[in-house]
Amino acid sequence: MVKVAVLGYGTVGSGVVEVIESNNSQVSRSAGEEMHVKYILDLRDFPEDLYGDRVVHDFSLILEDPEVSIVCEVMGGVGAAYQYSKQALEAGKSVCTSNKELVAKHGPELLAIAREHGCSYMFEASVGGGIPVIRPINSSLTAEKILSVMGIVNGTTNYILTRMGSEGADFQDVLEQAQKLGYAERNPEADVEGHDACRKLAILSSLMVGKNVDSEKIYTEGITRITTADFAYAKAAGMTIKLLASGRLLEDGSVLAMVAPFLISDTHPLAMVNDVFNAIFITGNMLGDSMYYGRGAGKLPTASAVVSDVIECARNQGRTIPCFWEPEDAELAEISGTEQSYFLRVKASARAEAEAAFPGRILELPGREDFGLFTDSMREKAFHEKYEALGDNALGRIRLV
Amino acid sequence: MVKVAVLGYGTVGSGVVEVIESNNSQVSRSAGEEMHVKYILDLRDFPEDLYGDRVVHDFSLILEDPEVSIVCEVMGGVGAAYQYSKQALEAGKSVCTSNKELVAKHGPELLAIAREHGCSYMFEASVGGGIPVIRPINSSLTAEKILSVMGIVNGTTNYILTRMGSEGADFQDVLEQAQKLGYAERNPEADVEGHDACRKLAILSSLMVGKNVDSEKIYTEGITRITTADFAYAKAAGMTIKLLASGRLLEDGSVLAMVAPFLISDTHPLAMVNDVFNAIFITGNMLGDSMYYGRGAGKLPTASAVVSDVIECARNQGRTIPCFWEPEDAELAEISGTEQSYFLRVKASARAEAEAAFPGRILELPGREDFGLFTDSMREKAFHEKYEALGDNALGRIRLV
Repeated sequence: MVKVAVLGYGTVGSGVVEVIESNNSQVSRSAGEEMHVKYILDLRDFPEDLYGDRVVHDFSLILEDPEVSIVCEVMGGVGAAYQYSKQALEAGKSVCTSNKELVAKHGPELLAIAREHGCSYMFEASVGGGIPVIRPINSSLTAEKILSVMGIVNGTTNYILTRMGSEGADFQDVLEQAQKLGYAERNPEADVEGHDACRKLAILSSLMVGKNVDSEKIYTEGITRITTADFAYAKAAGMTIKLLASGRLLEDGSVLAMVAPFLISDTHPLAMVNDVFNAIFITGNMLGDSMYYGRGAGKLPTASAVVSDVIECARNQGRTIPCFWEPEDAELAEISGTEQSYFLRVKASARAEAEAAFPGRILELPGREDFGLFTDSMREKAFHEKYEALGDNALGRIRLV
Repeated sequence: MVKVAVLGYGTVGSGVVEVIESNNSQVSRSAGEEMHVKYILDLRDFPEDLYGDRVVHDFSLILEDPEVSIVCEVMGGVGAAYQYSKQALEAGKSVCTSNKELVAKHGPELLAIAREHGCSYMFEASVGGGIPVIRPINSSLTAEKILSVMGIVNGTTNYILTRMGSEGADFQDVLEQAQKLGYAERNPEADVEGHDACRKLAILSSLMVGKNVDSEKIYTEGITRITTADFAYAKAAGMTIKLLASGRLLEDGSVLAMVAPFLISDTHPLAMVNDVFNAIFITGNMLGDSMYYGRGAGKLPTASAVVSDVIECARNQGRTIPCFWEPEDAELAEISGTEQSYFLRVKASARAEAEAAFPGRILELPGREDFGLFTDSMREKAFHEKYEALGDNALGRIRLV
């Protein structure tokens, strides 16, 4: 019998209990022995809840119970969640989490503690919700030198961009619609400014290189400046706009990491990832491209990923499941030195100026007072200098994949 | 030090040696210890080859060498490959294979032998080439009751259908082109008649239910009867045509398994899987839909998957990696009892007859002497009776996803 404690009885926590209980025959078979939720830690009481009798308020009960071998940390935040995770690991209990903020911030430290104590720190649900992507990296792409990871890892922004593209609607209108549907928070900043995607990218690119990519050092740009005009040009060019979290291993061993909106061809597999779906596109030196697609959020998909980690821990009791993510900082490349193509939108009156500054391809749409320009490949720094020089004539710019 | 033997020095075998040797630092780090190819078994000699000195002709050398703990069976076929795999497992050596024919035929038996002898039988490369899909099923979707698997698992037919769709070219012309490019065999039957996809479906659907799905009992239809006319109608309807390997768990616990061309909406994630790429779309009861996409064939992608299995075995020496596939036969549902929608193409002269027989939606294309009909959902058996009754007036039919 494997006994599990769930920390936090919110959306994901109640999902974890639901998956373990309602898929119990499947879960127990996979784990190799019966699995049971012994404790649910929460500040609140749940007298009406089916599992209300398992709710406790004191973490030390869990910590000191030798029967509990696996702890699910699904409370969020980097305060108590960090303390509890650390204490559990130090007590030899494996920890499985969906807490991307904590993983991005303290991942390598918690992994090291797990190794010291013969248990595991697992975080499949921290990126891409229910999509298996962490385990594929850690136990399937193990013969690969991973060259890049590129993902649509935030459902809220992907929903907004999908609606803007399909309905020609404004950012603000779609955001309000998303808030009504519960796809966006009342304070949407973490999503629309790219911070959530940034944390997930820190995790993915750390696993790519095996060193620590600090989320606070990743260049991050949100989607608030994307307009319906941008989508009109994208469509005419056979492209769409996606918020991508992109990490690339450069030849000198440094990592180019960036979260930003990108123009991407309609024929690219990531272009068909719509609404709240997520996908992570990974390129390895032997395998080439592979992609992992699915529900990037939601109670049961996320809970299913947490429980799959619990099952892995149950199968590997007394050992540490390998995960290469050292505390040593990865070297991050300056984005100003990178080279790529850009799309920019410019007032029609400044055409001569723009054409002189940017070699590339012009795209005109009927009845508009601006035009689009797809530049040849150029350096980020040179692009920005020239773009700034256009002053008010420059109406917007988006990088190309 | 992990010492490996590679059985068969053909395309995949030489790829396996190349991946282990040229990605050695990655591979050894992942495995937790240095990995080395000690023997290559082949009937031929390779005096000019960089690894020619490791070639041996006698399997007993490998079998009796206690240093060899993992064997890669990449020779193909179900004769010697079966004997060698069995003997290796009986000697406690784990076996990793890309041989889908052998896995489909003897998978549960070889898995049972591995369990008895504390080693593992691994076959990630047998489905979807380099795409991680077997391990995601066996170690990521472990909290799920898997409800369906649906995949594009044959690169040759997907290449042919993609070209037919994009170029409006005939099956025969594209097949010849594919043969010239090396994407199709000179005898293309195993691919174009769906037999290759059928074996892969047997493996996927066996893992879905944990029982044995016999490939010889799977309804299998190839792509040889798909025409440019079908693609013209598909395009007009916002759809495309794909050869799908589909396994579905029915409510009574039986499995509906079928390989056949299907019409699929352009907005379905599988619709964008083009050329030689493969993808497997899996639906679970908690996670919902997820999809795994990548290179379904090719020397290095396939070899990378074999080596990822070798690494898993190295990490799990002395234990058996869990895989639920019992020898007990799964119950297969009769396809005649299933219900779905169909597309049929009928001579214009038989319109009244067809409309009377099939409630549904008519699609007419200008300048053609036939018309298309998308039926409402109906039983396979009823459909076929009515379709046969149309005699020569019926020009073709394709199921809808």
